[in-house]
Amino acid sequence: MVESYDVAILGSTGLVGQRYVEILSRHRWFNIVALSSSPGKHGLRYRDAVSWSIGGDIPEDIADMKVYSPKPEHFSGVDIVFSALPTEVAREIDRGFADYGFSVFSDSSPYRMDPDVPLMIPEVNPDHLNLVESQSRRFRGRLIKTPNCTSTVFTLSIKPIIDLVGEGIEMINLVTMQAISGAGYSGLSAMAIQDNIIPYIKNEEEKLAEEPRKILGRFERDHIEYRKLNIEAVTTRVPVSEGHTIVVEAIVRGDIDLDEIAGSLSKFKGVPQELKLPTAPRSPVRVYKKIDRPQPRLDRDLERGMSIAVGRLKLAGFGEYKVLKYIALGHNTIRGAAGNTVLTAELAIALGYMKR
Amino acid sequence: MVESYDVAILGSTGLVGQRYVEILSRHRWFNIVALSSSPGKHGLRYRDAVSWSIGGDIPEDIADMKVYSPKPEHFSGVDIVFSALPTEVAREIDRGFADYGFSVFSDSSPYRMDPDVPLMIPEVNPDHLNLVESQSRRFRGRLIKTPNCTSTVFTLSIKPIIDLVGEGIEMINLVTMQAISGAGYSGLSAMAIQDNIIPYIKNEEEKLAEEPRKILGRFERDHIEYRKLNIEAVTTRVPVSEGHTIVVEAIVRGDIDLDEIAGSLSKFKGVPQELKLPTAPRSPVRVYKKIDRPQPRLDRDLERGMSIAVGRLKLAGFGEYKVLKYIALGHNTIRGAAGNTVLTAELAIALGYMKR
Amino acid sequence: MVESYDVAILGSTGLVGQRYVEILSRHRWFNIVALSSSPGKHGLRYRDAVSWSIGGDIPEDIADMKVYSPKPEHFSGVDIVFSALPTEVAREIDRGFADYGFSVFSDSSPYRMDPDVPLMIPEVNPDHLNLVESQSRRFRGRLIKTPNCTSTVFTLSIKPIIDLVGEGIEMINLVTMQAISGAGYSGLSAMAIQDNIIPYIKNEEEKLAEEPRKILGRFERDHIEYRKLNIEAVTTRVPVSEGHTIVVEAIVRGDIDLDEIAGSLSKFKGVPQELKLPTAPRSPVRVYKKIDRPQPRLDRDLERGMSIAVGRLKLAGFGEYKVLKYIALGHNTIRGAAGNTVLTAELAIALGYMKR
Amino acid sequence: MVESYDVAILGSTGLVGQRYVEILSRHRWFNIVALSSSPGKHGLRYRDAVSWSIGGDIPEDIADMKVYSPKPEHFSGVDIVFSALPTEVAREIDRGFADYGFSVFSDSSPYRMDPDVPLMIPEVNPDHLNLVESQSRRFRGRLIKTPNCTSTVFTLSIKPIIDLVGEGIEMINLVTMQAISGAGYSGLSAMAIQDNIIPYIKNEEEKLAEEPRKILGRFERDHIEYRKLNIEAVTTRVPVSEGHTIVVEAIVRGDIDLDEIAGSLSKFKGVPQELKLPTAPRSPVRVYKKIDRPQPRLDRDLERGMSIAVGRLKLAGFGEYKVLKYIALGHNTIRGAAGNTVLTAELAIALGYMKR
Repeated sequence: MVESYDVAILGSTGLVGQRYVEILSRHRWFNIVALSSSPGKHGLRYRDAVSWSIGGDIPEDIADMKVYSPKPEHFSGVDIVFSALPTEVAREIDRGFADYGFSVFSDSSPYRMDPDVPLMIPEVNPDHLNLVESQSRRFRGRLIKTPNCTSTVFTLSIKPIIDLVGEGIEMINLVTMQAISGAGYSGLSAMAIQDNIIPYIKNEEEKLAEEPRKILGRFERDHIEYRKLNIEAVTTRVPVSEGHTIVVEAIVRGDIDLDEIAGSLSKFKGVPQELKLPTAPRSPVRVYKKIDRPQPRLDRDLERGMSIAVGRLKLAGFGEYKVLKYIALGHNTIRGAAGNTVLTAELAIALGYMKR
Repeated sequence: MVESYDVAILGSTGLVGQRYVEILSRHRWFNIVALSSSPGKHGLRYRDAVSWSIGGDIPEDIADMKVYSPKPEHFSGVDIVFSALPTEVAREIDRGFADYGFSVFSDSSPYRMDPDVPLMIPEVNPDHLNLVESQSRRFRGRLIKTPNCTSTVFTLSIKPIIDLVGEGIEMINLVTMQAISGAGYSGLSAMAIQDNIIPYIKNEEEKLAEEPRKILGRFERDHIEYRKLNIEAVTTRVPVSEGHTIVVEAIVRGDIDLDEIAGSLSKFKGVPQELKLPTAPRSPVRVYKKIDRPQPRLDRDLERGMSIAVGRLKLAGFGEYKVLKYIALGHNTIRGAAGNTVLTAELAIALGYMKR
Repeated sequence: MVESYDVAILGSTGLVGQRYVEILSRHRWFNIVALSSSPGKHGLRYRDAVSWSIGGDIPEDIADMKVYSPKPEHFSGVDIVFSALPTEVAREIDRGFADYGFSVFSDSSPYRMDPDVPLMIPEVNPDHLNLVESQSRRFRGRLIKTPNCTSTVFTLSIKPIIDLVGEGIEMINLVTMQAISGAGYSGLSAMAIQDNIIPYIKNEEEKLAEEPRKILGRFERDHIEYRKLNIEAVTTRVPVSEGHTIVVEAIVRGDIDLDEIAGSLSKFKGVPQELKLPTAPRSPVRVYKKIDRPQPRLDRDLERGMSIAVGRLKLAGFGEYKVLKYIALGHNTIRGAAGNTVLTAELAIALGYMKR
Repeated sequence: MVESYDVAILGSTGLVGQRYVEILSRHRWFNIVALSSSPGKHGLRYRDAVSWSIGGDIPEDIADMKVYSPKPEHFSGVDIVFSALPTEVAREIDRGFADYGFSVFSDSSPYRMDPDVPLMIPEVNPDHLNLVESQSRRFRGRLIKTPNCTSTVFTLSIKPIIDLVGEGIEMINLVTMQAISGAGYSGLSAMAIQDNIIPYIKNEEEKLAEEPRKILGRFERDHIEYRKLNIEAVTTRVPVSEGHTIVVEAIVRGDIDLDEIAGSLSKFKGVPQELKLPTAPRSPVRVYKKIDRPQPRLDRDLERGMSIAVGRLKLAGFGEYKVLKYIALGHNTIRGAAGNTVLTAELAIALGYMKR
């Protein structure tokens, strides 16, 4: 029996912050006891501070809570801090909370590539949580990161394939079609995307090249040995509200069997499944045989947005190379953000890293 | 034979400013000789300063022109200034240019209801241009306004009906479905409108109540006598790129004949048509009998966006009242903005108000 | 304690049919024991017969059920038949099932205006169920209808207002902005609605004029006395997936108080709420004060799609008339179809009409 | 000086048929003298037979022409037949017209891979028109085809690159994001694509693998030697009205210089440009340096839809291979269909193949 934890949400009024509210308000391990928003909203009730953009209602017990500016002194008594701050302020504030002594689980990009900070997908690299041991020399608390939303979906899809084909992958080429929610509530103008595609997302291709190498790396005593992976992405924005679609192409030296790949994806489970963590999907990866799947409107909500969908597996080749292709799709603000972070916190608790 | 005029465009990089560039670059009376954008872009070439959002190319001869900050001293030698400035700066800058001695034709909202400033739809109230005579006591130049985009489309549609039924209109109720371009390039976030309708547009309902009363008013010696009109609007934003749709309901005391209404709309012509002004559509109002028209994607470009479309005329009633309904649709950044303003300038020239 | 009922769904693979599957598969009174689809799919498993278009998964216990062609002999042992058949076949098949002895709860348009058939919104006209007593002279079973989706949302919103202002309503004018799901899965081509509005929906305006008069009518011994209501609608289709938006205008003789109206709407409850029926929302009508609500993407899912949202209440007038306006929004395939019908069946059971 | 030709349009009421009407009605070489539609519309006026879906008006002189069922005997006196028939009837009818003696220029898929039928992109393979010489043994007339819309845009983009890197291309991987107009007016339901992506387009990936090999092949005396090209595509549908976006990846053995590639694309011209054919764009390929281009809404109309846009050129690699990537975008119903076919007819005339 797990005890319950008092948690705070930083950046609670943004799109990802709202997902935290949705997930945590019905969570049996966590009690939301504090919320932050930008300093200008300090003191407002949550219902007045937020443009609630998720279907249905603001959870009733949260709606009348007050929001505070994100300063550690407003959050005493909190066990865990979930952070969904915008990039431009996240570096300083996340760090400040960790310095102050909080256990900070965060979605934003700063510190993701910091050697002492685990970059977590609970089914993929649970042992990377060991890095928190080394953090004591830098913070009084802890800082644990969720990858970029597209990195998370892609990496979760490639893990069972790497388990099968090992070192044989010469190059991975990605083409993404990303939902507008990925830009945040105000990150993209309606006129820009109406009846349109935008063929570039700033900094995204760099993150997709780097982050999976860390996530898929090997924990060695006190650091992560990055995996060698040559990833090149073309990232685009499409007029879809939620759900990132990724066309993955892996150029592999050596033999591949499509049925084996499909089997490895379908059967893939990790520690969260073994431990039956509250937010863990039964199957992190769903494989579709129907040729017209996955589709974002239909598949982004699989297992409350925590399961990714994979389809259109096919194989071609040239010379001595096999070229494996498939499409992966995942809910970018749930599995790609708040949901993945909550699952990470559950994992950290269950594995004993959060001993107080 | 009209001489040619050197013109400047203030706010040339916004959505309406781009429409000015498009219309004026191929105009046989006007030469674009100067462009302004926000001060931060001062000195850039137009092609680098603009996010060109109209299909096709930036007109070649304009693309390499430099843009200046909107200060009168940068625009010496210019005969006419077309202004598409954002509301928050328009009041001061439009006024400054008029004070300096320019003839300013402007789209933004400040000064629209100023008693000395004509609020023009060239087919509806050409004689309101007489107001410029009174302006000499206030500015060295002139200031002439285009109405709000929705006001323009609605007022153009109701004019031929008022010509027919006169004083009998007790109330007009409007429901609008407005395009996202009406909010400006960055005025609306993609996440707000994706798969959605926003049932309120700030300040729009007030403008729709007031502006038509001035436009349809009577010029008397030195001022406009407002028309009595009781207009109540519900304005909404819909996921359509261009083209405002307005469901008009007029509650009328007395008899109405639908065929007469349709005939009056179809036959409607004004001074711009008589004078065959370059930007004048042959028919300012197109009447559809097909029950599924007008539609924004199909009808917004009628006569290069200068003609509005009317359809779904129908009649009901209660007590002694007739209730006339129809749907009007017009291109909000052309007839509702830049195109209407250019036509106003043509009218002012043709009627001799612009004597130098 | 209610016993449980074995139910069938006719037309189970359409959009409304899928909503039935979603609602009934987790319903504690009903067991889905049979499904029909078009004859061409007879014998397929549900998962292969359906293009599942609701987010998430087909309920597991339903996915492998076989679908049958809609003939009564395939459905022996079934207590209740929920019918979501397309209009063109519904007349004959719904009637056939009722003749055969089934209790048929149906969404389609045929028989809605039949004097012996109750047209139900459970919160509005629960006593109309009495009509089923008269049905025995026509069918061995029963036939009970849900109104048109837009009629349902509108009528639910006007009922608390009529309760307040009574006979004073001279005319009601509606402008609708209806979701594409209302046309059925294949009822509307993507090219027709992309970046567009279609200003007409076939037969919809007639239904909106007639159905509310029956629903709001008075049950008298063995028939319904229609309410006098002069309703005139302009119905349009907009690029929104789910959720019909209706701008309602009521022209009223006599005084109205906006706060009273808002209060009457907020406090409105009916028999389903008193009886705490499983599908009943706590509040059938939610009133928003925020000026930018209701919005379809945000509000269609209130109380699992069973609550409608009302906002933008305002009052104007002319002569001796007050003109009340507001916007109502409801989930068209849940409250406007399957959900309303399931609630009707619950009501019929709870009130004892379904005694076997 | 070219004489003028009387032309007919088969399938004139579909989306591509409408593009033919638009292009040919203002064409100085061609007079539209006959139109066909499906047999059910035989005898109607064009304005009544068509759901005109292109912005603006039906060209006036065409609107009142009658449409005929597509039988050769209705089209005597016609010199050239442009065919935009749906696939399922095109095989028989196109062939019938060619047998009857007409010169048929056609967009549909049947006969594209027939060894006697040229598959034309005028800038790419003008000499393939020589194949018509061999056709006399099969038809009394001629049959000339335009490729699949995506094949056309892709092949036009890769031609200048192949001119540069020659035999070094080991494999080409494509990911497409195709507009809904590519499915025809009724080919895709609104509900399928709203807020969604469909990750598969039937038969499209096969066409993309085959057609470019023919188009880029070498004419040898009386047949085409196919080019060896290993092309593998993943094709998807996105909620964009017009304009196909293609992410191209070419795996090349040997050296590549990005500037040379960009130069070769920019400078690319073909026989249509040399001959200044009426429909020829000045530059068939526009290269963008701006990192957020090309975009379908902004770039599909370049040079009236006849120029394709290329952007996001980048280079990576593995082992001895270079991996070149770029995004190509073209107007699918103009350059990808009607416009390309009209240009082909102009080429055939200018090169003397249409001697009567």
